[in-house]
Amino acid sequence: MLIMDGLGGLPRKSGGKTELETAHIPNLDALAAMSSLGLTIPVAAGITPGSGPGHLAIFGYDPLQYEIGRGAMEALGIDFEMGPDDLAARGNFCSVDSNGMITDRRAGRIDTNINQELARLLSTIKIDDTEIFIKPIKEHRFAFILRADGLHDTLSDTDPQKIGIPPQPVRALEPKSEKAAVLVNQFINSAQKVLINKHPANMILLRGFAKLPVLPTYQEKYGLNAAAIALNGMYRGVARLVGMKVLVVNGQTLNDEFITLEKYWNEYDFFYLHIKKTDTFGELGDFEGKVKAIEEVDGLLPCLTALKPDVLIVGGDHSTPAVLKSHSWHPVPVLIYSPFVRPEGFPEFGEHACSRGSLGTIPATHIMPIALANALRIAKYGA
Amino acid sequence: MLIMDGLGGLPRKSGGKTELETAHIPNLDALAAMSSLGLTIPVAAGITPGSGPGHLAIFGYDPLQYEIGRGAMEALGIDFEMGPDDLAARGNFCSVDSNGMITDRRAGRIDTNINQELARLLSTIKIDDTEIFIKPIKEHRFAFILRADGLHDTLSDTDPQKIGIPPQPVRALEPKSEKAAVLVNQFINSAQKVLINKHPANMILLRGFAKLPVLPTYQEKYGLNAAAIALNGMYRGVARLVGMKVLVVNGQTLNDEFITLEKYWNEYDFFYLHIKKTDTFGELGDFEGKVKAIEEVDGLLPCLTALKPDVLIVGGDHSTPAVLKSHSWHPVPVLIYSPFVRPEGFPEFGEHACSRGSLGTIPATHIMPIALANALRIAKYGA
Repeated sequence: MLIMDGLGGLPRKSGGKTELETAHIPNLDALAAMSSLGLTIPVAAGITPGSGPGHLAIFGYDPLQYEIGRGAMEALGIDFEMGPDDLAARGNFCSVDSNGMITDRRAGRIDTNINQELARLLSTIKIDDTEIFIKPIKEHRFAFILRADGLHDTLSDTDPQKIGIPPQPVRALEPKSEKAAVLVNQFINSAQKVLINKHPANMILLRGFAKLPVLPTYQEKYGLNAAAIALNGMYRGVARLVGMKVLVVNGQTLNDEFITLEKYWNEYDFFYLHIKKTDTFGELGDFEGKVKAIEEVDGLLPCLTALKPDVLIVGGDHSTPAVLKSHSWHPVPVLIYSPFVRPEGFPEFGEHACSRGSLGTIPATHIMPIALANALRIAKYGA
Repeated sequence: MLIMDGLGGLPRKSGGKTELETAHIPNLDALAAMSSLGLTIPVAAGITPGSGPGHLAIFGYDPLQYEIGRGAMEALGIDFEMGPDDLAARGNFCSVDSNGMITDRRAGRIDTNINQELARLLSTIKIDDTEIFIKPIKEHRFAFILRADGLHDTLSDTDPQKIGIPPQPVRALEPKSEKAAVLVNQFINSAQKVLINKHPANMILLRGFAKLPVLPTYQEKYGLNAAAIALNGMYRGVARLVGMKVLVVNGQTLNDEFITLEKYWNEYDFFYLHIKKTDTFGELGDFEGKVKAIEEVDGLLPCLTALKPDVLIVGGDHSTPAVLKSHSWHPVPVLIYSPFVRPEGFPEFGEHACSRGSLGTIPATHIMPIALANALRIAKYGA
């Protein structure tokens, strides 16, 4: 499964071509002729997915049933290996005045260096029978993870989202979350003392408390021994969540990712390979950059096809049209190759070709069952 | 949202063109090239919708979840402003013999004039703590509306659907409907006395008791301040039901409807404009008439596009092929225009073009979410 993040696009002007249609992709086009094409809807008609729901959907999990909360996404994003006992939140360093009223929710966007030093200080806080992880991200942002038995994540934010009032204590929104509320409030009280002389970063705000959802793994759901190749923590985290082994990539280039695929080819029977650049250029509004990223993937495709996969899925987790500079609701091009698909017979991989493809416009969650069928791995239903 | 009632059609003979494909519609064709096309399924595969379900679906409400009963449709059809305390039914004047046995369920299809006079008489009947409305329709038909607290609509019909037996008393089909049953039977007893010397219309039959369903409004569901432009009561009624402001149209022509749109353009952020003629000609089996009605709409389209809507939906509530002289189950052509759709690039609006369109063949309820997404009015789902 080759996922180009944010693959789907839009033309720069009406009647023009999308990023994918503009790209010179002879390898993908040739593959398309032998494949079935379609468009995938990650969540629902008109709904723009975040990266979490987009990935869960293409992995075959209903993103309306399984939710990855904001705190958990933040922790996954920095490659923190969250476990089932972990409660995560987004953290901000903030500024408070002598009465404890918030004067700046972002502490003047302190340098990441200062963040790292303060995070080290906060990591020294001890609470009985818990582990606490404070992982600096950038400027004023950090990930907060509390590890203990019996934590639940239905908790209110401490961040009131405005200034002139104090940070709010965490409240349990359900009785089962009382324990977590007590522990988090205990941590916040200690943090306040540790930071008291560290103006502008003399207090913290926490929001988006979340544990990881519990999902059936790829082994349980599909009988697959699956591995993930991704350069960014968030995608590695979501892959880990569904039970994929996250492989070590030596290097940061697309080529390094494909070399990793070759290296481990005989050790797993499913690979998820994630390409981030397509989305990054889309978010930047860089149409040409996204076109070039797609062309770079096309250039590396022969490394993959040379391995002769039984089934090959090429698609995306959502659309990120450069003209919108953001994720969007548009269905996402997909192709499925195997010796057993009904091939389109026409060498073109693009939004229009896919909208006329024989897979139709379908929920993204349908892709894995179709791929498994093409691997002749799904038994007949009924006698 | 421009709705041509019964838009979908069929060719007169196999291999020919449908009404929409036959029509000379340069404006709609040009719009199609810049739009995404598809086909909508109002209720479910193979199901022919009535006007109520067809409209609820294109408005975004699952017509299997929300039902508008026959009595309520009858009341809406004559532009009666039904409220939440109103219980409506279809009424017939009928003939009974000296033993009270029905001899003619339609009272010989009395003149509408006589209907109006008798309806006035029935309107004089008083029942404590209720209001009664008897609204003449045509020949022997009238709408019956009872307004009181605590009414429920699970009631049996009084019309036995055959002659030689007496009208049946209304029975409560659930205990909660007892009050309504008592009041309706009280009214029928009074009506019998009032009409005793009015042969052939010397009795009444009531059927299809219904209150309005309670739906989230367009404001609640979509955050839209919506207005409706329609010449016929039923469509005005369904629009009112979903919280649209029903605008006054001065005149009875399509042009009058488009003038109303222009007049109120700056006062609302969503407009539903309903065209009845397409369906009327379809029901009459008048293929050419339906073609001309579609061409008339095409001629007026520039009045609409000149207003520069952010998003434009052109579609129908169901199909009404002239060859069938009735509503049908066929999916309905639709186009969505906005600067953010993936344009088809080909100037053709018709059933075949739509069946190959990039929206696919989708539930009609998906149209509003996609339209709202194109208006950039839906927030991202998940992180």
